[in-house]
Amino acid sequence: MTYTIGIDMGGTNTDMGLVRSDGAIVLRRNIPTNAYTQLEPYVKDMMAEIKSMLDEQGVEIDGIGIGAPNGNFYTGCVDNAPNLTIKGVLDFGKEIHKYMEVPVVLSNDANAAAIGELVYGGAKGMQHFIMFTLGTGVGSGIVVDGKLVHGSTGGAGELGHNILIPEGRQCSCGRKGCLETYTSARGIVQTFCELRKEMGSKETKFGWIAPSVEDKDITSKMIGDAANAGDPVALATYEKTGYLLGLAMANAVTFSAPEAIFLMGGPTKVGEPLMKPLRESFKKHLLNIYEGSCDVRMSELNANEVAILGAAALVKMKK
Amino acid sequence: MTYTIGIDMGGTNTDMGLVRSDGAIVLRRNIPTNAYTQLEPYVKDMMAEIKSMLDEQGVEIDGIGIGAPNGNFYTGCVDNAPNLTIKGVLDFGKEIHKYMEVPVVLSNDANAAAIGELVYGGAKGMQHFIMFTLGTGVGSGIVVDGKLVHGSTGGAGELGHNILIPEGRQCSCGRKGCLETYTSARGIVQTFCELRKEMGSKETKFGWIAPSVEDKDITSKMIGDAANAGDPVALATYEKTGYLLGLAMANAVTFSAPEAIFLMGGPTKVGEPLMKPLRESFKKHLLNIYEGSCDVRMSELNANEVAILGAAALVKMKK
Repeated sequence: MTYTIGIDMGGTNTDMGLVRSDGAIVLRRNIPTNAYTQLEPYVKDMMAEIKSMLDEQGVEIDGIGIGAPNGNFYTGCVDNAPNLTIKGVLDFGKEIHKYMEVPVVLSNDANAAAIGELVYGGAKGMQHFIMFTLGTGVGSGIVVDGKLVHGSTGGAGELGHNILIPEGRQCSCGRKGCLETYTSARGIVQTFCELRKEMGSKETKFGWIAPSVEDKDITSKMIGDAANAGDPVALATYEKTGYLLGLAMANAVTFSAPEAIFLMGGPTKVGEPLMKPLRESFKKHLLNIYEGSCDVRMSELNANEVAILGAAALVKMKK
Repeated sequence: MTYTIGIDMGGTNTDMGLVRSDGAIVLRRNIPTNAYTQLEPYVKDMMAEIKSMLDEQGVEIDGIGIGAPNGNFYTGCVDNAPNLTIKGVLDFGKEIHKYMEVPVVLSNDANAAAIGELVYGGAKGMQHFIMFTLGTGVGSGIVVDGKLVHGSTGGAGELGHNILIPEGRQCSCGRKGCLETYTSARGIVQTFCELRKEMGSKETKFGWIAPSVEDKDITSKMIGDAANAGDPVALATYEKTGYLLGLAMANAVTFSAPEAIFLMGGPTKVGEPLMKPLRESFKKHLLNIYEGSCDVRMSELNANEVAILGAAALVKMKK
């Protein structure tokens, strides 16, 4: 057995785990990212936690993997991530090497999730697959020939910003109609709010989310619960979301002809209300030459472990 | 200098060329594909022509590359191509090896064009780029990390069948709204015919293609000439075509973050009436993180050489 450190750097918290090569997270630690405004003290405290894990377990590690917003694989830096209190271009490798001479590999969260699935999850042994992560936004990680696609800039695999509906919904990226505007948690809430206005007169009064609840107080979790309780507006919301996501996934297949498309993240927890229309739409929109060669699957990793496992897996991936 | 045979297998003709490693086609031969219904006599006559080229030039070759409809790189076979008079699964490697023990590499036309650009054209030295080929259909070839993306089936890189307009125009593939239905030669003609109905009352009478010309007699070449002569309907046709193709190309960038997107084929010969709106749309729809890292370029290969050069280049590509 070998050991690896996986670090999930979020805007609020930084989760660290000591990961064994069979995919078990044997120890975990946590520091508050937003308590820091400089890289040096942040890495100093991070390394103290890592050292304490290694001492406690009495093991050495083969590397440190970091999943971070705006993480660039090529430079090993976090590039001006808007949601971090530590500003600027953060060179983690350089800073960590002051404490420990091990390989440091960094990428964004969705890429890390893809490699986590490849090394520890349902994509073991696959040469070609795509991971979609649904959350506040929509991310993706693409594996071709067993390797993560980084592209010429390090920024490949941003399928959440594929324009699905030309001149469609306004996206936070400044453009319109991105997949993310329809299938992120926020996009799902927007669809629900639109549909309850449209369907309201004849249907919402029987529904699960009372008409008196204001749009701004609705969460995708509430819509998921409502769908599973049979609310017609919530079900229609997931019909639309699944339709669009299935279409986007079928489009992605025309690029790399993957063996599977994996899906993970909070908004997928609703289950069948999303997955049924998604599978139907994927099948309907898949080009005939790909029939039977690719299916849509849920991630096989635990939701509360995937970020650390994915980060650790970055160290294990084929360069 | 080394030499390679490149074969462009079309439904009507099969063009063969003896290609020198500097990209010069030193000899060419031709046999009529549609005179054959069986693979054996077809390959027999093909090999006789190849042998005559090698004898005439007094050289040996490092391999034979074939660009063919439905050509599958992994199997080395042409799989049931609907437009060929020779039916079934055609195992070229096996048949050619009866005559000559050299590597035989086969792929579809668009993949061959991409590798032609990489080995002999404007993509020399690039690690990441995408080729779009416009013709009767729309094909694509995708290069990631210096290698062609074949995917799990050999059928990757079918961006002409990316669904650009959900529930849009009927495509010959049976689905709706594929890029091909808008930006192939046929798609351009359809757009023109639609627009001249819409714009007709106030504009077509001043235009270049007389209203008396029936829809079925209009070709994309005529529309190209009309656009360059200032016909407003033809110009509006390319405005729409360029807008949609630029959008599709910007979407493709979110996948592999290429250094460049190349474009070739008959419908591109019109020049600026297509390229100007295409570049504007590409710029407008490109996600901000890719700004300045990728541009749209015309293929640097001669239109009448690209198919043979691309086929020959297949032998030279990184596996």
